[in-house]
Amino acid sequence: MKDFEYQNYIYSRKNEDDRTIINVKGVEIGGDKLTIMAGPCVIDSFEATDKIADKVKNLGASVLRGGAFKPRTSPYSFQGMGTMGLDILSDIGSKHNMPVISEIMSADELDYFVEKIDIIQVGARNMQNFDLLKKLGKTDKPVLLKRGFANTIEEFLLSAEYIMKEGNKNVILCERGIRTYETFTRNTLDISAVPVLKRLTHLPVVVDPSHAAGIHWLVKPLSLAAAAAGADGLIIETHINPRESSCDPEQTLTIESFTSLMNELNPVVKAIGRSI
Amino acid sequence: MKDFEYQNYIYSRKNEDDRTIINVKGVEIGGDKLTIMAGPCVIDSFEATDKIADKVKNLGASVLRGGAFKPRTSPYSFQGMGTMGLDILSDIGSKHNMPVISEIMSADELDYFVEKIDIIQVGARNMQNFDLLKKLGKTDKPVLLKRGFANTIEEFLLSAEYIMKEGNKNVILCERGIRTYETFTRNTLDISAVPVLKRLTHLPVVVDPSHAAGIHWLVKPLSLAAAAAGADGLIIETHINPRESSCDPEQTLTIESFTSLMNELNPVVKAIGRSI
Amino acid sequence: MKDFEYQNYIYSRKNEDDRTIINVKGVEIGGDKLTIMAGPCVIDSFEATDKIADKVKNLGASVLRGGAFKPRTSPYSFQGMGTMGLDILSDIGSKHNMPVISEIMSADELDYFVEKIDIIQVGARNMQNFDLLKKLGKTDKPVLLKRGFANTIEEFLLSAEYIMKEGNKNVILCERGIRTYETFTRNTLDISAVPVLKRLTHLPVVVDPSHAAGIHWLVKPLSLAAAAAGADGLIIETHINPRESSCDPEQTLTIESFTSLMNELNPVVKAIGRSI
Amino acid sequence: MKDFEYQNYIYSRKNEDDRTIINVKGVEIGGDKLTIMAGPCVIDSFEATDKIADKVKNLGASVLRGGAFKPRTSPYSFQGMGTMGLDILSDIGSKHNMPVISEIMSADELDYFVEKIDIIQVGARNMQNFDLLKKLGKTDKPVLLKRGFANTIEEFLLSAEYIMKEGNKNVILCERGIRTYETFTRNTLDISAVPVLKRLTHLPVVVDPSHAAGIHWLVKPLSLAAAAAGADGLIIETHINPRESSCDPEQTLTIESFTSLMNELNPVVKAIGRSI
Repeated sequence: MKDFEYQNYIYSRKNEDDRTIINVKGVEIGGDKLTIMAGPCVIDSFEATDKIADKVKNLGASVLRGGAFKPRTSPYSFQGMGTMGLDILSDIGSKHNMPVISEIMSADELDYFVEKIDIIQVGARNMQNFDLLKKLGKTDKPVLLKRGFANTIEEFLLSAEYIMKEGNKNVILCERGIRTYETFTRNTLDISAVPVLKRLTHLPVVVDPSHAAGIHWLVKPLSLAAAAAGADGLIIETHINPRESSCDPEQTLTIESFTSLMNELNPVVKAIGRSI
Repeated sequence: MKDFEYQNYIYSRKNEDDRTIINVKGVEIGGDKLTIMAGPCVIDSFEATDKIADKVKNLGASVLRGGAFKPRTSPYSFQGMGTMGLDILSDIGSKHNMPVISEIMSADELDYFVEKIDIIQVGARNMQNFDLLKKLGKTDKPVLLKRGFANTIEEFLLSAEYIMKEGNKNVILCERGIRTYETFTRNTLDISAVPVLKRLTHLPVVVDPSHAAGIHWLVKPLSLAAAAAGADGLIIETHINPRESSCDPEQTLTIESFTSLMNELNPVVKAIGRSI
Repeated sequence: MKDFEYQNYIYSRKNEDDRTIINVKGVEIGGDKLTIMAGPCVIDSFEATDKIADKVKNLGASVLRGGAFKPRTSPYSFQGMGTMGLDILSDIGSKHNMPVISEIMSADELDYFVEKIDIIQVGARNMQNFDLLKKLGKTDKPVLLKRGFANTIEEFLLSAEYIMKEGNKNVILCERGIRTYETFTRNTLDISAVPVLKRLTHLPVVVDPSHAAGIHWLVKPLSLAAAAAGADGLIIETHINPRESSCDPEQTLTIESFTSLMNELNPVVKAIGRSI
Repeated sequence: MKDFEYQNYIYSRKNEDDRTIINVKGVEIGGDKLTIMAGPCVIDSFEATDKIADKVKNLGASVLRGGAFKPRTSPYSFQGMGTMGLDILSDIGSKHNMPVISEIMSADELDYFVEKIDIIQVGARNMQNFDLLKKLGKTDKPVLLKRGFANTIEEFLLSAEYIMKEGNKNVILCERGIRTYETFTRNTLDISAVPVLKRLTHLPVVVDPSHAAGIHWLVKPLSLAAAAAGADGLIIETHINPRESSCDPEQTLTIESFTSLMNELNPVVKAIGRSI
């Protein structure tokens, strides 16, 4: 598709100043600030999640992430705590005054998510689950839509359109790496998608370096790159003790690494005229 | 994954003679015959579908395919006739004594599919819609599971496992092309997936050359290749007048092309010791 | 590129009957026969190569393959016997009355290849080594040009054009698998490339299932598929004792497997109206 | 490959302080500065190249790039001015006191390159032209080795090893985008390759955002991202009038765009503790 072909969609950016800023309990996404979303891959206990929330908030994160329903390739892998995980996440978000984000896997849980969760995440595997997209479009909850790992930018935007067409304009796009032949990294972060999306749509664009890389020591340089390329936010897996985490320990930052990341991120964000 | 790692799943082939034959209203899939499933991309009228069914059955097809709920990249594309399409397909199947197959997009329609449709298809975009897979696993309907266009063979098998683990052992695997950098064809048919799957699992394996190629003149050579490589069936888009079809006219065979395909397919199928 | 855009090249097929048949010491490539090229990955001794030649010729192979200059990813891997390997191959070809094929890696050896070798192979890594292509174009030796593992069909044809433009019309195209995200197989055999190439060009098209798959038990089904899809030939790694081979033992057929392949290939080839 | 497997190569980084700084006529590559290489895609006249050199030098570029031998997909595309182009580039480099870089396509021109050019570039298509790599390894000229567009990081490093093993340790690695299914951009810049390479090897790593993106308005954000991710340099196509350029006008920056890029790049480079 050429540029001009994108101009008649609800997602289309009409001019350089056209941007959607989504306000979630006082946290603005898509504005001048770079929004940091951090937290564990999966909620496995109140205590660990509570400690993580406390730490990441102090270091600059404004949104708390945590998985309760986990899309696992194998049916024999841990599938998450389910609604109990959502309850914990919601309680900890309230305690620390942080909006919370978690992934939905089935429309069956939509009412529960709407009640408990501030930003509903659609994972890469469900980016073209059009039934789920339409149902999310009938709520007014902010939706963070992850790019499918083999979906084009055009398909990504059209999936956002599925949500917006039903009435819900609060869509946040998330680049999280695509499948390529390279095996060193888990996926290949398509950094170009950030400026391409920022040009084609007014919607906020965030980056998930943790899932793209699959390796903890890549999260920092990829976060700096994403910020420099114009991303509106980052979503970063962080844990008090990654080895204890029930999923993805390889890519999860310790608090020490998260601190180091924030220390290096701040001057880069300032250099491009934004703040955290 | 190495071969031996596959041996403890429900889908795993225990030995060379281990194969699942699924009997759908008298049509066997996974046995000695090559099963031909044919029909329009989308059901758009009783009359056209009825004519197509009549023709393809005479030419050797034993299962009638037709879309009622269509997974379209854009929300502004024709989304199919919905339950009315299922009614038409079901009626025509009964009239011609052909089992029917159609794609499900939401668990909301599951009861209707179970009542009307003989083989429920899960499309490439929903291969990792684990919620839908689990619900299909609780029925006893044959499920044709298409490989996601960026999913590995391992992930494909584990999605089949999601269905089987819930109790439903009637799973048919369908290779339909994967995403690569090549743009001449719509997708790249991964012909190697056929013998790999036949080795790793006892489940039937069919090939969809129409969606893989996206070009009508490739359907014949790819069908011959799939049969020679050991596929248990083919699913082929066919229409009386492809130009009139509401979707995918580029890849749909005319009755003349379908006739020509069947004429060339028969001797190849015989050469490998099977029949149609 | 659309079909019509291909019509003004030297490689372009002008009509359905337009095909180039290359005669190499009495062996026709691109005609009604399916040409079998077989032999070891790499020449490592006269004795082993001689035995292999004897066996594969008896089983139906008409061209003997063998590597002397090996393109190895690491500089520390065995690089082949060089000109001594070409000498051996040439002598054994004469002894068994088989034309021989071997890969060239540098224009420095071109004169030696022209003297000793009947079909000069350009490997996937050199498909866009335009300097080498031009120099080959100034000879009249048959050239087997392998598709680069990340090259499009269009680029493949334009590389053939580089050779033909210099005067050498004896080009054979070889599909050998492309790079994708799938890791079960070494590469993904792009079976669609066979009918696409046969439509766009009059040049012969052969398939290398050994390098595409990287797994010996896939060579047979992929060979059957390639023949059914319209390939004019197959190039198959075969060895008396693959475990002894200095390279690629995983994908090399034993004489027993090669025999089994030929037994199953013959009826399929006959079914499509060709012979071996 | 795991980290530890990389430790026994000449390219391997022995510890965190191990880095190669290549001094080319006083310009250091791989040290604390971010090296900017700029210039036209192809040299087409003395006058245009002279003006470009003057402008980009004033704006912070320290190395002048320009193509004389062009690797074109089609034999009918403009192939560059050849040695005359090298002469022009060399003269302009001397005039402006800038080292020059240009791509070699054949070992036949190696002596001429060694005489005239300060950094010899090996293009993506020749990354595994092992004969050329070995010959470059026998000179002492700095070599900028571009990653093949379907080569893994491991293969990339092993190609550098081919050069270093022959004695030439002056190798600069260049990430320039890889082939994926995404078609919006020409290639997908693998930004992760930058920190991965910086960890595995002591060699300098530069990024070519122009060829990766294929779109001029992506060059700035990708340059910022590359700098933030730790690249040691950037190589950027720039022209006085891109529309006049004989190749790649879509991705070439005007002097105005290059100025804007440098203005935004400077604070980011400072933020990460480097300078230009």
